[in-house]
Amino acid sequence: MLKRIGKSTIVFNNLPIIKGFSSVVGKKEGDGPLGGCFDFVSPDDTFGQTTFEKAESAMIKDAVNIALNKAGYLPKDINYIFAGDLLNQCIGSNYGLRELGIQFFGLYGACSTMSEAISLSAMAVNGEFAKNCIAVTSSHFCSAERQFRFPLEYGGQRTGTAQWTVTGSGAVVVSNSGKGVKIAHCTVGKINDLGIKDVNNMGAAMAPAAAQTLSEFFIDTNTKPQNYDLIVTGDLAQTGSLLLKKLLSYEGYDLKENYNDCGILIYNQKEQDVHSGGSGCGCSAVVLTGHIIPRMLAGQLENVLFIGTGALMSPTSILQGESIPSIAHLVHFTTN
Amino acid sequence: MLKRIGKSTIVFNNLPIIKGFSSVVGKKEGDGPLGGCFDFVSPDDTFGQTTFEKAESAMIKDAVNIALNKAGYLPKDINYIFAGDLLNQCIGSNYGLRELGIQFFGLYGACSTMSEAISLSAMAVNGEFAKNCIAVTSSHFCSAERQFRFPLEYGGQRTGTAQWTVTGSGAVVVSNSGKGVKIAHCTVGKINDLGIKDVNNMGAAMAPAAAQTLSEFFIDTNTKPQNYDLIVTGDLAQTGSLLLKKLLSYEGYDLKENYNDCGILIYNQKEQDVHSGGSGCGCSAVVLTGHIIPRMLAGQLENVLFIGTGALMSPTSILQGESIPSIAHLVHFTTN
Repeated sequence: MLKRIGKSTIVFNNLPIIKGFSSVVGKKEGDGPLGGCFDFVSPDDTFGQTTFEKAESAMIKDAVNIALNKAGYLPKDINYIFAGDLLNQCIGSNYGLRELGIQFFGLYGACSTMSEAISLSAMAVNGEFAKNCIAVTSSHFCSAERQFRFPLEYGGQRTGTAQWTVTGSGAVVVSNSGKGVKIAHCTVGKINDLGIKDVNNMGAAMAPAAAQTLSEFFIDTNTKPQNYDLIVTGDLAQTGSLLLKKLLSYEGYDLKENYNDCGILIYNQKEQDVHSGGSGCGCSAVVLTGHIIPRMLAGQLENVLFIGTGALMSPTSILQGESIPSIAHLVHFTTN
Repeated sequence: MLKRIGKSTIVFNNLPIIKGFSSVVGKKEGDGPLGGCFDFVSPDDTFGQTTFEKAESAMIKDAVNIALNKAGYLPKDINYIFAGDLLNQCIGSNYGLRELGIQFFGLYGACSTMSEAISLSAMAVNGEFAKNCIAVTSSHFCSAERQFRFPLEYGGQRTGTAQWTVTGSGAVVVSNSGKGVKIAHCTVGKINDLGIKDVNNMGAAMAPAAAQTLSEFFIDTNTKPQNYDLIVTGDLAQTGSLLLKKLLSYEGYDLKENYNDCGILIYNQKEQDVHSGGSGCGCSAVVLTGHIIPRMLAGQLENVLFIGTGALMSPTSILQGESIPSIAHLVHFTTN
């Protein structure tokens, strides 16, 4: 008997639990509206390292250690770690986690990676392959900027639709028992590509993927947006969020005050010069672990849909004239 | 009750089945000793495309379609696809599979990706989250060479320990019922780094990871190398294979005639100028699907240990003076 409902949604029986969670961010994120929520804010973006790539690895390592600590676990208590980041060959994760001695699954889902990692952690735990898993992702403005765009020193100008890569890493410990926020459903996304070629407008490329996954989830579960206290994408930012609302309205779903986006929540749009908003694997991860999960535990939110969205292009594919394939994975968290 | 034995090994109850499988390769692989085994050999390495990256995407798409065909399935019959490749941001898979409309998990495990994808497919099926999954990976000599090493036109010389990236893509359909080769155990690897910095000697970097995963599997299952008809790594090539044998002999395990390596099997070492042997996500995938699974179905092999090995560095990490973290995931196939 498959643990699925409808066409695309997993329904968990013994709900996997978020037993520990952590958020580690850079200075700019610490200066933003959620600055007081994070476990650790670095005074600069080097995290004491000599390169930005090593800084990203240090950050992801810190995030895992803090999450382990909060869950009261040691690395030996964790069966699997599901990890990924934006760097070529995912070196943020590979180097940051190499000393842990935990069985490791490397993932690439661009900015959707946190929801992908949580889905797989929940499946591993619920499928009885693991007692405890960690899902962790990271991104770093400086390592991403020079890899995907221009050398930092160039000071390239950005368009209004461009997003700012968050410097941050978030981790969750997903367990088969204990107390905490629970995972009720997952809807894994399909790759979507409506032909957007503007790499400075990833919100537009990703919005259709988010709309598809959300509407499949609503159909599969026979629910509506108003059944949830918060529906949060990560990261469509301003441009993509507007498009998502429009796309879903065509299908009869109205996203209202209970909708937000991690890329909008993390920065002060007017004062922090981030154009459309935040992005990066670390953005949805730290907004989830620094802001959303604590609010759920405080009783402010009961049912939350968390939709990680990823733009699956590379600088090479864009230079070759390709459009931007995108994906969105949904996780339904509940305190019920 | 966890489906695990020992410290690190998953033991499946209803064994997941390989219901379809395919192998698509380039000209050089077609000219090698396994040339006659593959489903499709391209007369050149372009696969009718204008860039090598697009060729890789075409190849991975072909591999999935052939595997679907052999299993008698349409894309709508597949719940999840687990895919990855070597290209930055895994564009081989993202672009190659974007039109399928199958729920998609992107992976990065370097040359270990096929064993990672098969492990996760088996977990998804056995955990009752899916009826059918596809695991697929690819690599392409020309796209890998220019990304990881030098422009092709440069004609860079190689050291004796260097490996030749296989142009190929292999796919398997993993199902919860039917007939075919079965998956009995998986041992997911931990990241290992003994300090090797020579990027032209990835066999040496990966051998310790393979040794660790294999010895953990032998301890967990209380078995020895002689209990298996074939133990095959992918891809340590000549250099790494010798080191693996030595490392395992220190732990009391002798790998003898029943041991081989996908990177050794795929080329004629003397005539094809591949130095230490083959490598790339596609290498172990096509040797598995073109050579090993058919031999199992023909009754020539009953129990096979397939150990995908991945070197998790990037050109950036190597330029920054880092060593090469590695990983190895084991899958135990059986016809019993």
